[in-house]
Amino acid sequence: MTEFRSVAAATGEPTGPAFAVHSPADVDAVCAAAAAAFDTYRATTREQRAAFLETIATEILAIGDDLIEAAMRESGLPRARLEGERGRTVGQLRLFADVVRKGAWQQLRIDPALPDRQPLPRPDLRLRMIPVGPVAVFGASNFPLAFSTAGGDTASALAAGCPVVVKGHPAHPQTGELVAAAIARAVSACGLPAGVFGHLVGPSNDLGAALVQDPRIAAVGFTGSRGGGLALAKLAQARAVPIPVYAEMSSINPVLLLPHALKARGAALGTAFAGSLTMGAGQFCTNPGMVLAIAGEGLDAFAAAAAEAIGAAPAQTMLTGGICKAYRDGVAALEAMPGVEKLAQGLAGEATQGHAALFRTTAQAFIAEQAMGHEVFGASSVIVACADEDEMLSVIKALEGQLTITLHIDAADEALAAALLPVLEVKAGRILANGWPTGVEVCHAMVHGGPFPATSDPRTTSVGSLAIDRFLRPVSYQNLSGTLLPPELRDEAFGDGSPRLIDGTLTL
Amino acid sequence: MTEFRSVAAATGEPTGPAFAVHSPADVDAVCAAAAAAFDTYRATTREQRAAFLETIATEILAIGDDLIEAAMRESGLPRARLEGERGRTVGQLRLFADVVRKGAWQQLRIDPALPDRQPLPRPDLRLRMIPVGPVAVFGASNFPLAFSTAGGDTASALAAGCPVVVKGHPAHPQTGELVAAAIARAVSACGLPAGVFGHLVGPSNDLGAALVQDPRIAAVGFTGSRGGGLALAKLAQARAVPIPVYAEMSSINPVLLLPHALKARGAALGTAFAGSLTMGAGQFCTNPGMVLAIAGEGLDAFAAAAAEAIGAAPAQTMLTGGICKAYRDGVAALEAMPGVEKLAQGLAGEATQGHAALFRTTAQAFIAEQAMGHEVFGASSVIVACADEDEMLSVIKALEGQLTITLHIDAADEALAAALLPVLEVKAGRILANGWPTGVEVCHAMVHGGPFPATSDPRTTSVGSLAIDRFLRPVSYQNLSGTLLPPELRDEAFGDGSPRLIDGTLTL
Repeated sequence: MTEFRSVAAATGEPTGPAFAVHSPADVDAVCAAAAAAFDTYRATTREQRAAFLETIATEILAIGDDLIEAAMRESGLPRARLEGERGRTVGQLRLFADVVRKGAWQQLRIDPALPDRQPLPRPDLRLRMIPVGPVAVFGASNFPLAFSTAGGDTASALAAGCPVVVKGHPAHPQTGELVAAAIARAVSACGLPAGVFGHLVGPSNDLGAALVQDPRIAAVGFTGSRGGGLALAKLAQARAVPIPVYAEMSSINPVLLLPHALKARGAALGTAFAGSLTMGAGQFCTNPGMVLAIAGEGLDAFAAAAAEAIGAAPAQTMLTGGICKAYRDGVAALEAMPGVEKLAQGLAGEATQGHAALFRTTAQAFIAEQAMGHEVFGASSVIVACADEDEMLSVIKALEGQLTITLHIDAADEALAAALLPVLEVKAGRILANGWPTGVEVCHAMVHGGPFPATSDPRTTSVGSLAIDRFLRPVSYQNLSGTLLPPELRDEAFGDGSPRLIDGTLTL
Repeated sequence: MTEFRSVAAATGEPTGPAFAVHSPADVDAVCAAAAAAFDTYRATTREQRAAFLETIATEILAIGDDLIEAAMRESGLPRARLEGERGRTVGQLRLFADVVRKGAWQQLRIDPALPDRQPLPRPDLRLRMIPVGPVAVFGASNFPLAFSTAGGDTASALAAGCPVVVKGHPAHPQTGELVAAAIARAVSACGLPAGVFGHLVGPSNDLGAALVQDPRIAAVGFTGSRGGGLALAKLAQARAVPIPVYAEMSSINPVLLLPHALKARGAALGTAFAGSLTMGAGQFCTNPGMVLAIAGEGLDAFAAAAAEAIGAAPAQTMLTGGICKAYRDGVAALEAMPGVEKLAQGLAGEATQGHAALFRTTAQAFIAEQAMGHEVFGASSVIVACADEDEMLSVIKALEGQLTITLHIDAADEALAAALLPVLEVKAGRILANGWPTGVEVCHAMVHGGPFPATSDPRTTSVGSLAIDRFLRPVSYQNLSGTLLPPELRDEAFGDGSPRLIDGTLTL
């Protein structure tokens, strides 16, 4: 195959122009350019790098409505959602510009020489973080803007000083091409080497595999399926020089309804839950795929209200035919599991559309069938009814790692919530109260990460400013003279606004 | 086998008491205790945890000379070295106590709610680092105190709030047992659960494998051979839930002699180099196993002086019979490589002793034979003579990842050094000028780490206070009420001395 076209999500038919399928030779050329650009790019000042990120944001906005229309056509997502997502994309580029300027990411540390120390003098030691090298980013299908070509992984890697090679998601090649061209214009406008950003497209997994195996790639950012993430991690580990893969993969985002909250507002929670579940056809990494509560009237009221709303939910176009099929297969598999009762299914629609599904089971059935805890990507959720608090705790302990765990609590539930928190912390990257896990804020205190299989590396986040740390590594300089030291580690740079740990004391 | 004894390094004969070989059932019991202790231990206050680390230091000193004598007997290292190492061990426990108290490791971040933000309000989000869980630590043979039972990995993991299970190195079981008992006394004196520290001993690799495979172990610290580190990393990746392995493995620590420095003081550098190479029988991770310079009179003077000193160097007892044999095999292999000339060999000694070795080769021969760049653990080094600066750069680019790269420079060499630095930074974790790589300072700005195969994870260090980050992961709390938030994230804790990033601004 030498060309491919995007497929309109709503019709399943080819749409828009044809795109050349990139070859292994293209991977080689793009990685060579990225490697060649690395030293120049990482030597940019913080101001230059921040301005570059802001220029990307400006160039993306300058594309105008063509971008929104391409994304609508390719993803099936509605205009308002995609306009919001564009805002998020631009916002996170500007957030990282701010982070780059403030300089804390450099983690500057200075231990001055102690020439008179006994029994041995201490040398002068200074530490900074440097970028790891060219980063491969795999665009996600479910955020064609905010987690794709110029999405969070790209923004954080560029902020860290790493050239980026994006493997565009084949579900939205036209959207990707428009954004890639915007980044390329920003590269050019900022006078940076073209290799700072590379873009590869094609429908086959081989392209991504070749990219991860290229010896010039130093790290990988990925958002997608568990199978996809594990395959990339395996390739990365098998390299002559293994590299880190930051794969955000799989989570069912349990929602815990604690007894008093459930009793006080079971039906209202059920309706609100259905709204969170069905939003965007449930195609969020943080979709609430599981509800956990103690059986009783409150849970029955919750289930009834949720079932009513879900039963009336219109079918929604899914991102791709493959995702739609996987969703339907997942729902069918859940339905066939022992001890699972179907409470509601949304209205039927087109072949390209998914209809929401709600199931109910018991704690014992959930614990007995591990597959019930696996993510079904889309608007499907399972209510797990427990006999008591002990059984609830057993279910939590049986859970795999999660991106989020949500608690609905009233004041009278706080003692139980406090007892559960240590268990929840080891299971998830984000714990939230009295809200819904969908809607991930891009800020400094966000963790969009969590224990395996939520991600392949729970030591970090893929959303928010902390994500820059993924693409940095420390280097220590011992007894280097002032002119040889990196500028930010020289004495004369102290007071430039970057925090420094000087002899163990943090100094602003 | 149910018992084993330590072997006196100097004689190769069994020495001291017999030790019970731990079984898989012991691994299970120790890991269960560690997991059971985790929540209690991580809930300790910073002051409690710091006091615990300081109590370990006190208990180690309280063992007195028995500890030094056991370590001398088992490792063959001299008294002064081991007394110094004990000081380093105690010092790094106290350093981590200070780090724990100061609180920056928690990486507290607070993004307050913005209820009036349009189009959507921002929730209250707060982030902290929590410990990853029980950590397996593999004691190193070459630092029976500072990188073994209560060494850097143990200190940093305990500082992070992780229970530790040490797999003691079988080369120094008595030393390990004395230190393990001291830690156990500190655990008890501080009123902590016994499972905070576990200790497993036995001569077989199966014990360590079982430990890494135990599902309750969350991370691994290791210092040792490339083969050992890679084997552990492979086991860790193959688990149902993969875990990080921080293995410090293999480095030849190139020393670059730049032209003006070499011309000005070639012979003096050669003599000093020999001192660094032969210190402690060369049994340091940062031993200078390679010298790189442009051929000429200066390098000849360096080589002659180094050869003279090395030729007169007495043989030294090596840590174990296995290490001694591997050293001799490595030296023999180097000698047999095409293009390698032996310049000097130290004085012969006992069967348990290694004698230093110095070789010389050309840049072309070095680049042609990859194995010439592999570590020979012990006092062996290869001088690589280059035709010119270009060839020197080619050799540097052909190097694998390193813990350190050293530059000897005069003022007139600074332009060349500046040109080399970007290449050196991507090859090593520490770059030092006009010194020797041995002697790793335990401080805040140290990096004892580096690109593969120096370590399995170049994003961190195993020496110095930054090492605590290896055993932490971020958790975000969204809209949790004050009483449910971890104490350090509550409003009333602001001003407790821990730095906080509040709405993106660092606040002390």
